[in-house]
Amino acid sequence: MFAERIDRLTSSLVRDILAAASRPGVISFAGGLPASEVLFRASPQVLGQLPDDIWQYGQTEGEPALREQVAIRARALGIACKAEQVLIVNGSQQGIDLVSKLMVEEGTRVLTESPTYLAALQVFRLMGAHFVTAAQDEEGLLPQAVAGADARLAYLVPTFQNPTGLCYSQARRKALAGAFDTQSMVVFEDDPYRDLSFDGPAPAPIVSHLKQARWIYQGSFSKTLAPGLRLGYLIVHPDLIQAMTRLKQAADLHSNRLSQAIVTQLLQDGSLDQHVANILPLYREKRDVMQAALLQHLGDKASWALPSGGLFFWLTLKNEQDVMQLMQEALTAGLAIMPGSAFDPVPHPSSTIRLNFSHSSFEQIQQGIALLGSLIK
Amino acid sequence: MFAERIDRLTSSLVRDILAAASRPGVISFAGGLPASEVLFRASPQVLGQLPDDIWQYGQTEGEPALREQVAIRARALGIACKAEQVLIVNGSQQGIDLVSKLMVEEGTRVLTESPTYLAALQVFRLMGAHFVTAAQDEEGLLPQAVAGADARLAYLVPTFQNPTGLCYSQARRKALAGAFDTQSMVVFEDDPYRDLSFDGPAPAPIVSHLKQARWIYQGSFSKTLAPGLRLGYLIVHPDLIQAMTRLKQAADLHSNRLSQAIVTQLLQDGSLDQHVANILPLYREKRDVMQAALLQHLGDKASWALPSGGLFFWLTLKNEQDVMQLMQEALTAGLAIMPGSAFDPVPHPSSTIRLNFSHSSFEQIQQGIALLGSLIK
Repeated sequence: MFAERIDRLTSSLVRDILAAASRPGVISFAGGLPASEVLFRASPQVLGQLPDDIWQYGQTEGEPALREQVAIRARALGIACKAEQVLIVNGSQQGIDLVSKLMVEEGTRVLTESPTYLAALQVFRLMGAHFVTAAQDEEGLLPQAVAGADARLAYLVPTFQNPTGLCYSQARRKALAGAFDTQSMVVFEDDPYRDLSFDGPAPAPIVSHLKQARWIYQGSFSKTLAPGLRLGYLIVHPDLIQAMTRLKQAADLHSNRLSQAIVTQLLQDGSLDQHVANILPLYREKRDVMQAALLQHLGDKASWALPSGGLFFWLTLKNEQDVMQLMQEALTAGLAIMPGSAFDPVPHPSSTIRLNFSHSSFEQIQQGIALLGSLIK
Repeated sequence: MFAERIDRLTSSLVRDILAAASRPGVISFAGGLPASEVLFRASPQVLGQLPDDIWQYGQTEGEPALREQVAIRARALGIACKAEQVLIVNGSQQGIDLVSKLMVEEGTRVLTESPTYLAALQVFRLMGAHFVTAAQDEEGLLPQAVAGADARLAYLVPTFQNPTGLCYSQARRKALAGAFDTQSMVVFEDDPYRDLSFDGPAPAPIVSHLKQARWIYQGSFSKTLAPGLRLGYLIVHPDLIQAMTRLKQAADLHSNRLSQAIVTQLLQDGSLDQHVANILPLYREKRDVMQAALLQHLGDKASWALPSGGLFFWLTLKNEQDVMQLMQEALTAGLAIMPGSAFDPVPHPSSTIRLNFSHSSFEQIQQGIALLGSLIK
C-alpha cells in the first residue's frame, strides 16, 4: 500500500521509551530535553514587538534580518559565508530531512560516526542510505580513514556529540578537513550543542577549515533557547543553496514567522548570548551531580568520559549485559534510559547506554543513578 | 552530485514570477496570498495567555487540545474521526510532503485533477510520481473515469479548487466517493479554501461519503487566519496514522507550539468562525470587483466561471496566445499573472491564466485587469 521506503521507517522503540518516560513519576534520562526550568520564555515585551507583517506568507529562505544575524555569528566562528547562504528551518530535524532529500537515494553511501544521532540515521535510512563507518578513536573519526572512504555524504556531530558527548580537538578538526578536501563527498556538520560548552568556547567547526570540499553547516535554537520555537538553520555551500531552497519550499513553503521574529530580536539585542551565559552554570552543575553519582554507584561497573559540553553521558558497561532487558527492568522500576544500540548506523554488539543529565532535577539524577547502579551487574 | 530526484525539482518559473511580483509597484495577481488587511493578528491578550510549557519539546502528533478541536470541527462536516487521527502539520505544504513520502516512489501512479495545485505536483514529482489524469467536466472528475483509473493515490481539491475555483456538487461528491470505494487507491482530499465560501457552506467533503476507501483529509489555517502561523492538519484513516506520525517525527519532530497554542485558543472560544465571518464580505467584494473588471475588459477575449469561493479566477483565452510571452509582457508593464500551464500534471497546449483576487486592492484589481485586457489579443 505504501512506498517501499516506509518499510525502512525504524521501529517505534525510541518513541515507546520516550512515551514511557513521560509517565508521571518516571525519572527520565532517555530523551534529550533541555532543562525546562531555564528555557527561554518570550517576555510580553518581546511578544509585543512582533512585526505586523509576520502573519502573511514569508520568504522560503527565512527572514532576511535573521539570516543576516546567523551569518554574522557563523563568520565569528570562522565560517566564511554570506546571509544568502543561510536557510532558516523548522528545527534541526528538518535540516537533516532536507539534506537527506538533496543527497540520499536508494543505495547512497553515507559516512557517519558510530554511534551517531539516531534521528539522522532514521531520515537517511528512510531515503535509502547505506551507512559507511570509518575508524575512530577518542578524538573522533580518523583522517586517514576518511581519506580512504567511499561515500557521497559525510554526516558529523563533532562538538559534544549526541550520543557520546565527544568533542573533536582543534588539531583533529584541521586534519579531518584536509582529508575531506581530498574527497568529493559533501560534509554535513551538525552543531546544535556548541553553545552548551562548560570549559570555554569549543574549537571552530570542521567546515571552517575546508578549502575544497562542499559543505553544509547546521545550528539550532532548540538547545540554547527553546525547542518549542522549532527553529534552526542551515548554512550551505554556494553550489547547494538553490536546490536546498527549492526543497525547503516544497517541504513547507517557509518556517514559522513568529518564532523567527522572536529569535531575530534576541540575536540583535544580545539576549541569546546572555541567556546562554545564565543557564550554563545549571547545566554544568547537573553534569557534575550525575558524574558524582556515577562514580559512587557505577564506578566499578561502567566506564565513561566526563562530557565537557552538551546533554549526555555515554556509558560502556564493563560486564556484557543485555541492555534492552536492562532498559525494561529500569522502566518497570520507574527509570527511563536509552540503549546505545539505537545509535548504531550498522548494528553491532555493545553494552552501552546514553544518559541525559539536563532534564532531571538534582534529586532525580541521584535517585536514578543509584537505581541504575542497583540494576547493573 | 545530488540524488536523482533533484533533477525533477521543477524550474524556478513560479519562484521567479513571485519574486518579480513582490517588486514595489507591481500589481500581483500571481500568488495566492490572503488579503493582508484582514489577516488575523494575535492580540496581546492571546499572546499573554500562551501556556508556560510550550517552550519545551512537544508531541509529534500536535497539541492534544488542538487535535480535539480539529476533530470536533471535522465531525461537524460529516467526517467520522477521532482526535487520535489528527496530525498537526507546519502548513498544508508539509501535509502534501508527508503524504508524498508515505505513498509516492519512482513510478507511482498518482491520479490528479487537471489542472491542479502546482506545489502538490512539485512534491509528488520530486518523489517520482507518474501523473494520471481522468476525464472531468464542469463539476469535476467523472466517477466512471475514476472507477477505471489505475493509481495508488488520488489527489483532489474539490472545494474552490486552486487554480480553477471549481467546487464539486454534492451529487458529484457522492458519486465519486462511490467510485473510489470500488478502488484500492488512497484518497487525499486537500481542502484549504472550504471556509472562504461566498454563498453559504460548501458541500460536505468527498471523504465524508467514503465507505471502503482509505483516505487523508487536509485543512489549513493559512487562508482563514494567517499563513505566517504555518499551521494545518491532516486527518488520516486509522490504517495510515502510525506511518504518518513517524514521517512527521522524522521530518521535524513536531510543529511550532506558539502557533498551536494561539490557534487552540481561537478554536476553543469561537474566534475562528467569527474572524471568517468578518473577512468574507471583503473577499466577496474583491471577487465582484474583479468580475466586473473582467466583464468590462476581457468579456470578448476570454471565458471564465464566477468562483463561488476561494481566491482565484481561471481564464481561458478565446484566441490562442503564447501565455508565457504574455506573462513577460505583463511583468514588464508592472503586472504579475500566473500562466495556467504551471498547473498541468501532464503538459498540454492551453491558453489559460490564473488570477488571484484576494491580495490586491480594489484599485489595483481594476487597473491590473484593464492592463491585462490591453495586452490580450
